[in-house]
Amino acid sequence: MPNVKKIGVLTGGGDSPGINSALRAIVRRASAEGIEVVGFRDGWKGPIEGDAQPLTLADVSGILYMGGTILGTSRTNPFRKEKRDGEVVWEPTEKVDAIVENLEKLSIDALIAIGGDDTLGVAHRLAKYGVKAVGIPQTIDNDIGGTDYAIGFHSALATVTDALDKLHTTAHAHHRLLIVEVMGRDSGWIAVYGGLAGGADVILVPEGPPEGSFSVDDVEKVVKRRLAQGKRFSIVVVAEGARPRELGGRQVARGEVDAFGHVQLGGVGYWLADELKKRDLPLTPRVTVLAYLQRGGIATPFDRLLATRFGVKAVEFALEGRFDVLTGLWGTEIRAVPLGEALAQCPKPVDPELLRVAKVICPG
Amino acid sequence: MPNVKKIGVLTGGGDSPGINSALRAIVRRASAEGIEVVGFRDGWKGPIEGDAQPLTLADVSGILYMGGTILGTSRTNPFRKEKRDGEVVWEPTEKVDAIVENLEKLSIDALIAIGGDDTLGVAHRLAKYGVKAVGIPQTIDNDIGGTDYAIGFHSALATVTDALDKLHTTAHAHHRLLIVEVMGRDSGWIAVYGGLAGGADVILVPEGPPEGSFSVDDVEKVVKRRLAQGKRFSIVVVAEGARPRELGGRQVARGEVDAFGHVQLGGVGYWLADELKKRDLPLTPRVTVLAYLQRGGIATPFDRLLATRFGVKAVEFALEGRFDVLTGLWGTEIRAVPLGEALAQCPKPVDPELLRVAKVICPG
Amino acid sequence: MPNVKKIGVLTGGGDSPGINSALRAIVRRASAEGIEVVGFRDGWKGPIEGDAQPLTLADVSGILYMGGTILGTSRTNPFRKEKRDGEVVWEPTEKVDAIVENLEKLSIDALIAIGGDDTLGVAHRLAKYGVKAVGIPQTIDNDIGGTDYAIGFHSALATVTDALDKLHTTAHAHHRLLIVEVMGRDSGWIAVYGGLAGGADVILVPEGPPEGSFSVDDVEKVVKRRLAQGKRFSIVVVAEGARPRELGGRQVARGEVDAFGHVQLGGVGYWLADELKKRDLPLTPRVTVLAYLQRGGIATPFDRLLATRFGVKAVEFALEGRFDVLTGLWGTEIRAVPLGEALAQCPKPVDPELLRVAKVICPG
Amino acid sequence: MPNVKKIGVLTGGGDSPGINSALRAIVRRASAEGIEVVGFRDGWKGPIEGDAQPLTLADVSGILYMGGTILGTSRTNPFRKEKRDGEVVWEPTEKVDAIVENLEKLSIDALIAIGGDDTLGVAHRLAKYGVKAVGIPQTIDNDIGGTDYAIGFHSALATVTDALDKLHTTAHAHHRLLIVEVMGRDSGWIAVYGGLAGGADVILVPEGPPEGSFSVDDVEKVVKRRLAQGKRFSIVVVAEGARPRELGGRQVARGEVDAFGHVQLGGVGYWLADELKKRDLPLTPRVTVLAYLQRGGIATPFDRLLATRFGVKAVEFALEGRFDVLTGLWGTEIRAVPLGEALAQCPKPVDPELLRVAKVICPG
Repeated sequence: MPNVKKIGVLTGGGDSPGINSALRAIVRRASAEGIEVVGFRDGWKGPIEGDAQPLTLADVSGILYMGGTILGTSRTNPFRKEKRDGEVVWEPTEKVDAIVENLEKLSIDALIAIGGDDTLGVAHRLAKYGVKAVGIPQTIDNDIGGTDYAIGFHSALATVTDALDKLHTTAHAHHRLLIVEVMGRDSGWIAVYGGLAGGADVILVPEGPPEGSFSVDDVEKVVKRRLAQGKRFSIVVVAEGARPRELGGRQVARGEVDAFGHVQLGGVGYWLADELKKRDLPLTPRVTVLAYLQRGGIATPFDRLLATRFGVKAVEFALEGRFDVLTGLWGTEIRAVPLGEALAQCPKPVDPELLRVAKVICPG
Repeated sequence: MPNVKKIGVLTGGGDSPGINSALRAIVRRASAEGIEVVGFRDGWKGPIEGDAQPLTLADVSGILYMGGTILGTSRTNPFRKEKRDGEVVWEPTEKVDAIVENLEKLSIDALIAIGGDDTLGVAHRLAKYGVKAVGIPQTIDNDIGGTDYAIGFHSALATVTDALDKLHTTAHAHHRLLIVEVMGRDSGWIAVYGGLAGGADVILVPEGPPEGSFSVDDVEKVVKRRLAQGKRFSIVVVAEGARPRELGGRQVARGEVDAFGHVQLGGVGYWLADELKKRDLPLTPRVTVLAYLQRGGIATPFDRLLATRFGVKAVEFALEGRFDVLTGLWGTEIRAVPLGEALAQCPKPVDPELLRVAKVICPG
Repeated sequence: MPNVKKIGVLTGGGDSPGINSALRAIVRRASAEGIEVVGFRDGWKGPIEGDAQPLTLADVSGILYMGGTILGTSRTNPFRKEKRDGEVVWEPTEKVDAIVENLEKLSIDALIAIGGDDTLGVAHRLAKYGVKAVGIPQTIDNDIGGTDYAIGFHSALATVTDALDKLHTTAHAHHRLLIVEVMGRDSGWIAVYGGLAGGADVILVPEGPPEGSFSVDDVEKVVKRRLAQGKRFSIVVVAEGARPRELGGRQVARGEVDAFGHVQLGGVGYWLADELKKRDLPLTPRVTVLAYLQRGGIATPFDRLLATRFGVKAVEFALEGRFDVLTGLWGTEIRAVPLGEALAQCPKPVDPELLRVAKVICPG
Repeated sequence: MPNVKKIGVLTGGGDSPGINSALRAIVRRASAEGIEVVGFRDGWKGPIEGDAQPLTLADVSGILYMGGTILGTSRTNPFRKEKRDGEVVWEPTEKVDAIVENLEKLSIDALIAIGGDDTLGVAHRLAKYGVKAVGIPQTIDNDIGGTDYAIGFHSALATVTDALDKLHTTAHAHHRLLIVEVMGRDSGWIAVYGGLAGGADVILVPEGPPEGSFSVDDVEKVVKRRLAQGKRFSIVVVAEGARPRELGGRQVARGEVDAFGHVQLGGVGYWLADELKKRDLPLTPRVTVLAYLQRGGIATPFDRLLATRFGVKAVEFALEGRFDVLTGLWGTEIRAVPLGEALAQCPKPVDPELLRVAKVICPG
């Protein structure tokens, strides 16, 4: 059992509502044990540069519901990712040493890292450099293994569902084909959950065979069948990472693709609209791009509770000496899941049972 | 495997957001198999009086997000509850025969009952009269066994959390002691989840020793400690069923207590305010009673998804010939749980782990 | 034209969403002219005790939408109100001198007071002691003269309307008689606007003849007529200050009445429910008391815009040497209205045209 | 005073939240006088084709808050617009005769047309064919003369403000340049009101000199100045009709321009992002396109009240024999404004006083 007197915390990657609830819980839980908490600024940049500040009960007062993160975030990675023989290898840079040094200098006994696969991937790889870390999964994409849900997913879901509710009221009035592009990178969690909750008629996800996850022809068919049934509108939810068969199964990017195949997504909504305009449809397609709205806003009760419970447990795992793990939701329980195991499942594809339900409920 | 051609549905007990999502899913899932669906009006009153209507795809169009239930509900019970040797016994009345007859007359092959312990209790007891029923748990109180969550709980939670968020902004401005009375009957689910998600300073639940689940003295102490820390306000969440030690552990009722000890709750908030007024506090207590607001509103995405999945699975359980069960959420999975087993746990007390978290996070 | 170099600001009375938007606008507008702003804490208590802090651009960053007031508020009044010959007279106390002294000591050239009739009443009466003040009307009750709307009214309206929307969904499901008690002190603004926007069936306001503003008999009649029309529920909005004819036209208080006839209201909802329970109705009355929810939450766009415009104009009136006025909304324009004139109309009764519309639209 | 026994209603143009509130008020007000109401389907298409249905109290029950329109809408115009000598002339087609005939056949004594400049323009031009019409202004763009506000504007404003609130929380976390494209066609009402209410840093509107209403250079300067002040993000609201100086002052279209210079707008957000990417900025621009979200959702209390009052007054104007007018909000009063006069001001540019306030408050 380690003697934990000081805990460091950082938040990395794309932010999402609920992070601040976790920070509040960490500080409250630690304070109850007389443990000091230190917050690093801007993700891994903080420990690399030794940029830290005490996090007191006063600092986390009133932040329970606030979106964003009071610590700031970044995508800084102390490892250099290289592609070798088709595989991505993480090579340590001198920033790894800087982290080890700074944690020692600041007498940090345990580090809590809140973030997605990249942020938690660093935490995991730092283990062999002696860094004692507990991870908290946080990403609206919900693509991290080892947990039913990551912080932020249900808040993003609330934004998407609210948007679909709004569009339904106006879709009825006119003959409209409304296309809503949602986030999720390479997985369809937001699209399927959001589409089901918001009553979409068509849901297009990235998951599927290499030659494409959907086809414009199929979308056209659904719209036409609905028109034949007297339904004057259709609402299509398309994940930013969905892959049209008409493009050979590649994603539709706005911007460059990096060496690792990561593209800046965000074009498939307009692409689909343009394709559908060419078809013989009596409905004009209109596109809504929610973009960063999905990261914003106040956290839903679900995310506040999840984040609060993750924060409490992360401190307790540290007190119990359980490191290189993440806090995972399993049913109604929080478990310590080995980080390596959880990360091996990234990007976790959307639950097939939900895809099956989607097919029954929105047969489009 | 039964040959199911016609399914009956009813919704009973107190309503909550999400019921309509379940009805929509039931009809859509059944339609995919060419099964007819019939809706009974006003809970068990429907099958007793043979008051039924076809439920078509058109009937359930556009109701996904709507609170309430398009079928209406009631608390009619075909059994007569009697107290014998300290135990409640359900005696069948002639209404049971009426149900059996009407189901036969209408050629109902399977019945789906959506409701709380009372509604599902009837479904279970009708099994020995040959009624083939599948239950869907629905109650904002979340006090039904056999499932992590019932439909409606997360929507009620959203209303309570939103109220606490609102109160926080104004509590800061003045020296205020705000008391919020929430529902939950004999359990503290809404109070604990809502209080944690909304950042309450004190959470009072019904769970606890017979001599009372809380004491006014303790509330006073928390408020005073917070004042000493410079905190100019306190927010107290009190479950309608919380039992003050000062009253010997009995609940505070507005109205009569029936033979079964069921009281019409809804007085503890004002009672607590009046008690605190007598103490030496520089804060004036003000009471908010959310009451039926907690049953109302649109369903949250969580409840829409849960209800949709329950609806789909209820039809599938019927197709598989699995009756006298409820659809239960176990982690991310929907299981068929024997109704008798699930009902034996009612009223299911709030998860002790959440009570523990509440104690750490709001140590008041 | 006075040479204004330093402006003081205070916020008094009950708070409401939008105050912070006004503070932000005041600081931004003043900064554009190189004018310093100083914030007094807790209403008139601040200038009495010389409790002030600089208000910089950084201080008002990010507060646009936040409810409450970053300056705190109080009901402290430097005058002593006395009843003489049936009239209320404001007698200055030594606190008036303290204010004058402190303003001089701090070199305050102009004071902006944000509040209701009491806060603005002080500002007006201080004019003859040389205090140069501009008032900004702020009260959810909307009972101040000289302006179409005060800050906060539309935000309170949003809360009431949202509550009524929620109740409508659940009222349909059951046979229910839902009573919602809303604020507004001696006027019916919140009740009428909220009741109309939320589709209430009965709206009860304080305005009316001395012998009472409503009668339980009339409420009963409406509910019965609706039942006869097949409407299984009724929603009643009752203003806290409504005066039942059955009580001889007096308000229903929870707590004591002071020498000035000011009662702590907040009992009429339960009183009405108890009276209706005695009548022969097949609906059980249930009461929701929104209470301080109506002061809380984020400001609506309307209130943010109004408050922003009021803040900008308050600074400009000071620059133009126009004091002892309030910023009043007249249509789409902001005017300088003499405080004495505006206060003489307090409490401003609800617009009779809206009462007429309410009678047509909810004829109950 | 005409003897009005039967009123026809139609809703045309782009829909917006609040229309249904107006329909409900019209039917309730008419019913109180024993007047029958008939609803035409899909805008002017209804009277052209004689496609009508009775609108009863039951039909408008429960629609108060619903977005969209239960009557459907269209952009069908019985006049053919032609450009002659640089001016647009409305030439009657045989559809005008069809309208006159159908109104006669159905014994419609008065017609209420709810819509924007196009829908109301038809109503006005039909006057000389003997059609007795009252207009109700409805458009989220708020560009109709003769009224302070049109139905729908405040609801669209709520959607934009909510989006900006959400983006603020996430903008803080990262170094981000968030661009939000909003509607408004040729005027900046939504952009200015929304930008002010949502705390945007830059607001770009269509109003301005012919050579362009904004310049990318200016946007760049603001972002850089904010960075120099330590502000790690900027939020830009750009009206779809804003005209970049860099493009010689023309709007940025997605799709074709018709003979009347009407373009399908909706490209300026991405265009601006692409231009800013070329500049030397350490922030990546990200675009959110709200699109039809702005037409959707439930109506705000403001719009429900406005629509209810417009509906009541439209019936009363008809009863008083005042035709060829629209219901206009003037301060807190509803007036009958001659349609010709109101339409002559279309598109009404955004209130210059608000532009001035925007310049002070968001000096970007």
